[in-house]
Amino acid sequence: MSDDFSLRDRALQSRDAVELLSDKWRITLLHLLTPGPQRAKALQQAVPRISPKVLTQTLRGLERDGLISRRIYASVPPRVEYQLTDMGSSLIPPLKTLCLWAKAHEEGRNQARREFDARQRKPP
Amino acid sequence: MSDDFSLRDRALQSRDAVELLSDKWRITLLHLLTPGPQRAKALQQAVPRISPKVLTQTLRGLERDGLISRRIYASVPPRVEYQLTDMGSSLIPPLKTLCLWAKAHEEGRNQARREFDARQRKPP
Repeated sequence: MSDDFSLRDRALQSRDAVELLSDKWRITLLHLLTPGPQRAKALQQAVPRISPKVLTQTLRGLERDGLISRRIYASVPPRVEYQLTDMGSSLIPPLKTLCLWAKAHEEGRNQARREFDARQRKPP
Repeated sequence: MSDDFSLRDRALQSRDAVELLSDKWRITLLHLLTPGPQRAKALQQAVPRISPKVLTQTLRGLERDGLISRRIYASVPPRVEYQLTDMGSSLIPPLKTLCLWAKAHEEGRNQARREFDARQRKPP
């Protein structure tokens, strides 16, 4: 019983990180904004698989969480740019470590998948 | 044009990390397995919001990626335990850094959300 409780506690501990990154496009958009401000149009072109609606929603979510800010330039037509806030920038190093981990273990992951799939194909 | 290309390149760079963690439950389950092996039942009880079907799917996905392994003990009824593999264990430190970041910026995030929501409520 106390074991279950501590496990449930652990599950809650990870909630913040999950909330931050479980959205499919957040990591990608933060990564895209790392070199500097970008226009929504450039982000859309960089990730063609994201629909305009989902792109807008994701950017709004990142803005709401204080990770990016939106800047409107009074040109005609108005130009809208997104950039990392200080808080957003501070998330980049841990995120980068994670991306490097993923890259470093790409082959191990691919091998694990091949082995798993081969096991699935075997007759029981 | 070359700018767009490099942005698209960046988008692809983040794909591995996204694939690893964009699933809502992966971070939580890896976190739950950090102290040691767990039975599926204990995981289910720790995260009551996850449906048994999705739990099984997520565990299979983690197993397929080589992050966790499944061990069947020949008891009656057979006991099934999940544990981190070496590769899975090596993901824990970067994941922990990320969780600590999320925790450290909880208040900043909450404040950003309050401010964002207040801006939305203002008449245009």
